[in-house]
Amino acid sequence: MPQYKAPIRDFQFLLQDYLKIEQYKSVPGFADCGPELMTPVLDEAAKLCEEVLFPLNQSGDKQGLRYDNGRVIMPDGFKEAYDTYVNGGWPSFTCDPEYGGQGLPEVLNMPLMEMVCSSNLSFGLTPGLSHGAYNAIMLHANDELKKKYAPKIVSGHWSGVMCLTEPQAGTDLGLIRTKAEANTDGSYALTGGKIFISSGEHELTENIIHLVLARLPGAPAGIKGISLFISPKFLVDDNGKIGERNKIRCEGVEHKMGLHASPTCVMQYDGATAWLVGEPHKGMRAMFTMMNAARLYVGVQGLGVAEIAYQNALAYARDRVQMRAVTGAKFPDKPADPIIVHADVRRMLLTMRAFCEGGRALALEMALMNDLAHRHPDAEMREQADDFVQLITPITKSYLTDGGFDMANLAVQVHGGYGYIKEYGVEQYVRDARITMIYEGTNSIQALDLVGRKLPYRTGRYLRAFFHPVDAFITKHKDNAEMQEFIKPLSKHVEYLQKGTIWLAMNGLSNPDDAAGGAVEYQKLFAHVLLAYIWARQAAIAQEKLKASGDKEFFEAKITTARFYMQKILPSTISLLSSLTAGSKSMMQAHL
Amino acid sequence: MPQYKAPIRDFQFLLQDYLKIEQYKSVPGFADCGPELMTPVLDEAAKLCEEVLFPLNQSGDKQGLRYDNGRVIMPDGFKEAYDTYVNGGWPSFTCDPEYGGQGLPEVLNMPLMEMVCSSNLSFGLTPGLSHGAYNAIMLHANDELKKKYAPKIVSGHWSGVMCLTEPQAGTDLGLIRTKAEANTDGSYALTGGKIFISSGEHELTENIIHLVLARLPGAPAGIKGISLFISPKFLVDDNGKIGERNKIRCEGVEHKMGLHASPTCVMQYDGATAWLVGEPHKGMRAMFTMMNAARLYVGVQGLGVAEIAYQNALAYARDRVQMRAVTGAKFPDKPADPIIVHADVRRMLLTMRAFCEGGRALALEMALMNDLAHRHPDAEMREQADDFVQLITPITKSYLTDGGFDMANLAVQVHGGYGYIKEYGVEQYVRDARITMIYEGTNSIQALDLVGRKLPYRTGRYLRAFFHPVDAFITKHKDNAEMQEFIKPLSKHVEYLQKGTIWLAMNGLSNPDDAAGGAVEYQKLFAHVLLAYIWARQAAIAQEKLKASGDKEFFEAKITTARFYMQKILPSTISLLSSLTAGSKSMMQAHL
Repeated sequence: MPQYKAPIRDFQFLLQDYLKIEQYKSVPGFADCGPELMTPVLDEAAKLCEEVLFPLNQSGDKQGLRYDNGRVIMPDGFKEAYDTYVNGGWPSFTCDPEYGGQGLPEVLNMPLMEMVCSSNLSFGLTPGLSHGAYNAIMLHANDELKKKYAPKIVSGHWSGVMCLTEPQAGTDLGLIRTKAEANTDGSYALTGGKIFISSGEHELTENIIHLVLARLPGAPAGIKGISLFISPKFLVDDNGKIGERNKIRCEGVEHKMGLHASPTCVMQYDGATAWLVGEPHKGMRAMFTMMNAARLYVGVQGLGVAEIAYQNALAYARDRVQMRAVTGAKFPDKPADPIIVHADVRRMLLTMRAFCEGGRALALEMALMNDLAHRHPDAEMREQADDFVQLITPITKSYLTDGGFDMANLAVQVHGGYGYIKEYGVEQYVRDARITMIYEGTNSIQALDLVGRKLPYRTGRYLRAFFHPVDAFITKHKDNAEMQEFIKPLSKHVEYLQKGTIWLAMNGLSNPDDAAGGAVEYQKLFAHVLLAYIWARQAAIAQEKLKASGDKEFFEAKITTARFYMQKILPSTISLLSSLTAGSKSMMQAHL
Repeated sequence: MPQYKAPIRDFQFLLQDYLKIEQYKSVPGFADCGPELMTPVLDEAAKLCEEVLFPLNQSGDKQGLRYDNGRVIMPDGFKEAYDTYVNGGWPSFTCDPEYGGQGLPEVLNMPLMEMVCSSNLSFGLTPGLSHGAYNAIMLHANDELKKKYAPKIVSGHWSGVMCLTEPQAGTDLGLIRTKAEANTDGSYALTGGKIFISSGEHELTENIIHLVLARLPGAPAGIKGISLFISPKFLVDDNGKIGERNKIRCEGVEHKMGLHASPTCVMQYDGATAWLVGEPHKGMRAMFTMMNAARLYVGVQGLGVAEIAYQNALAYARDRVQMRAVTGAKFPDKPADPIIVHADVRRMLLTMRAFCEGGRALALEMALMNDLAHRHPDAEMREQADDFVQLITPITKSYLTDGGFDMANLAVQVHGGYGYIKEYGVEQYVRDARITMIYEGTNSIQALDLVGRKLPYRTGRYLRAFFHPVDAFITKHKDNAEMQEFIKPLSKHVEYLQKGTIWLAMNGLSNPDDAAGGAVEYQKLFAHVLLAYIWARQAAIAQEKLKASGDKEFFEAKITTARFYMQKILPSTISLLSSLTAGSKSMMQAHL
């Protein structure tokens, strides 16, 4: 019953008009990023998601996985869908051409990421995590390991998984106990248990390459004593041929609220053969280098769920007739008006539209900035982009995942009682989205990262990567009459954000609990102001485009949504600032 | 793995010190409401919920129901638990002694209602809806029908169900098509289908008494043409003996996000024998007389879920060690500190505590007001209490159910990854609570009731039932130095509420979309100020009690929670006022 149509027009607008990615033609990988490449890529990705992945989303949730004595059997159709994904060349899209990749930028891959998350989030985790493992190998492994493992992960015939969490070590990876002991041949033997390992076991791929955090003998306590290892499910000989089974076993899969078609595995390593990746005790540092990309990807999971939730809520609201408009019947020939005439239903739908289109702009911009931070030939440009990525990543992860869950819930609310029934599909979005606020660092951890690490970095250098362009934008449009309805609230709320930032700087040092206790509120405040900036820019472009005529409905909708955002969503900042600056005393003194 | 302990101490405080129910000894039913009755009632109810209902909550969710050719088979243990509930006399607690009831007030039954919702919400729906059916019969049926059906519902040996919704008629009951045609013997034949009928079929009771909305031939269109009928699953002879099966059949049960142990039935009436309850075409009026009690009960469902979510989040936060406090290790002998030391975890826990204890005070006060509105010997007192009930009911339903869901989500967040795993129990609370924001009138419908019906009623008469006592309270404490931290924010935010109310009065008439589009925001604004009033009163009592010494920890906690509420939660009103007064133009002009 649910439906999905990829938001191609919005992707085109954001890539071409908002980010103007053609200006980066000189950056490696961007040379072909014009419409002649973009259009077929978007169309093919849309076709894959709409026709192959989406039809398996509800059936995968219903059927779920089967665990059988170490094996994990995926729901019907998932293996075939994965093969289609691989045959389309999608795993290699952004990978290094030297290892079989296509070398294209992340920003051009981002639409696919979102579409996969919309159409089948459970499915998406396997290739998503595999790409993370690829990054870890490429950034930290030696050439021998790279040559052995990277090409097959790039092609998608093997998958990679990240194995971090243990029962006693979730947020606090310093408590990891899995140990690695040297064998005589330069390899290591891994012993220990890991939990919550997404795609830790399945039969979608010929081999699964585990990247495992573990301790070497005599390693320092805490996170400074953790090393990264690579350990394949099947050992691989020097010719790249798969050999005997390694001592890695899946002990079970978790029964979860959602993501029923994604195996969350309990893994046991009983002297599994492994190789060190990077230097001893530098495993956490290796994790950190991949963190921004991983967190952006989890944010996009929230965005993807929000988009499909919005599409279905909109379709339902257009179709369902119930009650009359408060200003009089709009469809007197029908037994009642479609519920889309009701102001409160429109409020919910516009909240979703503002989130999806604003969040999409944010996700694409972050992908572009990640690209520029890594690929731009000019060191200063790389640094500027990286500053932005460092600051905005925790906000992106938390905003998009909090919002993904909230929007899925709004879709349920728009559906009324039908929203609670599995057949209608929207309740699954709530259940699937819920974990995104937790994994890859809970949204509280994101807030602590923002407030504790990113704000103070070199006396606020990262902050300038946000405030400088915002100031420039405000200045540019300060005399533009038709932009006043966007520039005025943006300026006002930027001031609130500055007040909050100064309050944190003044109080956080002397009382770290004030910073930690207000971090989530500050993060939300920042996100709202960031989105106001994004919406003001979308409105400015839409106004220009309207003058040039063409696609009037699309650009007018951008302006209407920007207006709704400024009037109805942005005001949350005022309360957040007030709560933030109330400090942590009432929380810390309470007996709990 | 989850746990539940009934919050007896808080019930005692609220009944004795906050509501001072002993002052109502002269009101019928209240005579015995002193500690000598209250203590054993609370203890017995707690025992039932902790030991009988709670152990079936997770297993019921996991096992779910079985539908078999018209039959509905409940999860293991539910029949035995229901029998225990009946044998304890709980169904008859507040019922009319003339029909076998105990005649006790709703306010004394409210703790049981909450505890049942905490310990097993699915279980609670059957007796909860049965009580609603009892009310409908008592208020609207003739003596013959009352004598036939009420006593067995009072004893719990039969249950009652409310049958309103049809596929095309949910919020809009005017669209109902089920028809009732007169038989020759004074009975009617019901024909039509109903959906979403909670407890519509099961084998917990010997008989199920259906209260069905249907149309008589030639009835006016819309809600003015709907009549109420009573139709038993098994026909009953004049001696009260159960006879042949009526033409009522359950065609299936819905597969839902949550409440897996509560049958949500598709019912078919194929000429089912029925009797008219009340006058022809006055069925909706009959529904309205029961609505306040029903909505309060659904609100308590949200509260109950929030309480058990809070208890489990608190227990987990005390137990789980992960990371060190930002101000330095608090438990240096442990591998890490328990997460309860972290300010943000405390923020989540205190948000939950403030919601549960504030919401409980609200629910009990509403129950008392309902009692007084019906039972007080003085007509003026009845009217005053009824005014309060009319105004505050939609706020109570929406605040407690929105919050129930939000608090369940916070409990998941406190649990981190474990919160997503079924075994830990908290994700069930999210799924179970979700429907409460929808049924018995969605929370948007509550807001429209508040703004469209309750505010304008007799030029704002209902509003005075709130603002007058608040003003009196503020005046009473205006020179009390230690109350200033509560009185000042309360006064300030009451002003915001007044501003919002005036804005609605000024704009809502000329543009009904402004009222309808801002109704949800206004409802939330009102709820926050109402809770500020509740917390200020709890703080005032706690300060008095502390002077008298005794139970220091309990009363200090009340003050701390009140302080947290004022500083960290109440500020949301500012943003809500701003969004509300932005009006509906941006929503109504958007092309959707």
